Amino acid sequence: MQLDFAKLDGLVPAIIQDAASGEVLMLGFMNEQAYRETRASGEVTFFSRTRNKLWRKGEQSGHVLRVREVLVDCDGDTVLVRAEPVGPGVCHEGYRTCFFRRLDSDGSTEVVDTRAFDPAVVYPSGRPASTARTRREGSKP
Amino acid sequence: MQLDFAKLDGLVPAIIQDAASGEVLMLGFMNEQAYRETRASGEVTFFSRTRNKLWRKGEQSGHVLRVREVLVDCDGDTVLVRAEPVGPGVCHEGYRTCFFRRLDSDGSTEVVDTRAFDPAVVYPSGRPASTARTRREGSKP
Repeated sequence: MQLDFAKLDGLVPAIIQDAASGEVLMLGFMNEQAYRETRASGEVTFFSRTRNKLWRKGEQSGHVLRVREVLVDCDGDTVLVRAEPVGPGVCHEGYRTCFFRRLDSDGSTEVVDTRAFDPAVVYPSGRPASTARTRREGSKP
Repeated sequence: MQLDFAKLDGLVPAIIQDAASGEVLMLGFMNEQAYRETRASGEVTFFSRTRNKLWRKGEQSGHVLRVREVLVDCDGDTVLVRAEPVGPGVCHEGYRTCFFRRLDSDGSTEVVDTRAFDPAVVYPSGRPASTARTRREGSKP
C-alpha cells in the first residue's frame, strides 16, 4: 500500500498517540522523506512546512517519540503513529500532550492537564526553533 | 481562543477519538462553517474538500458522532474531538475505526481489526457519496 501524499500537496497528517495510554499527543505532517526517515530511524520525524525541512521530534529536547506501530486509514492519506514518548511530555509548553486545553462552544478555553515539565529548563533558548512558525501576515482569523 | 484556519487554506484537521475507549476513529477536515455547525448541532460535521460542501458524518449511515468535548492544540490549528460514535463503526469499509490496517516498514499492510458491520447493507448504493473522493489525475504516488 502506498501512502497518498498527493491529496495534501505532498503531505500526510500524522496523528501521534501514546501507545501505552491511548492519549493523543500531537499532530504533525510528514512528507514522503519524513515518513521514510521515521521508518528508518524508528523515531517520529515530521516535515516542518514553515522551515521547509525535516524535523525529528525531540531533536532539541530529547523528548523523542519511539515508533511502536503505524496504522493507516482507509483512504491511505492519514497515518496514526502509536509511539512511546521519551521524556515527560511532547508539548513545548510543558505538557504531556499538545491537546491540554479544552475549547468550549463560546470560544473560551480551559487547561485540563497539569504541567509535566518546565519549558524554560528544557528549552532554555526559548521556543524550539523546529516548532516555531513564521505566521503569514494576517493569518490569524 | 480563535482557531487558526489560515495555516491550511481555511481548514483545520479534526482528529476524532472515541470518548469512552480512547480509540482514534478517523481524521477529517473542518472549515470554520463546519466547526460552527459541529458546535451548534453537537454532531461532528466536516468539510468535504472534493465536494466542496459540508458533510455531517453519518448523514447517510446514521452513524453520527456525538461531540463530548473538543480539545485544541497549543498552536490552535488542530482539534481533537472526543465523541460518542452512534452505531457500530465509522468506516465506510465496515470497521469501528478508519485506522484498521497496520502499515509495516516494507509497505505491506495487515488488517488488525474485525469488521463491525456489513457496508453493503449500510451503504446499499455503494460508497457513501459524502466520502467518495474524485481523485485528481495522477494523484496517487
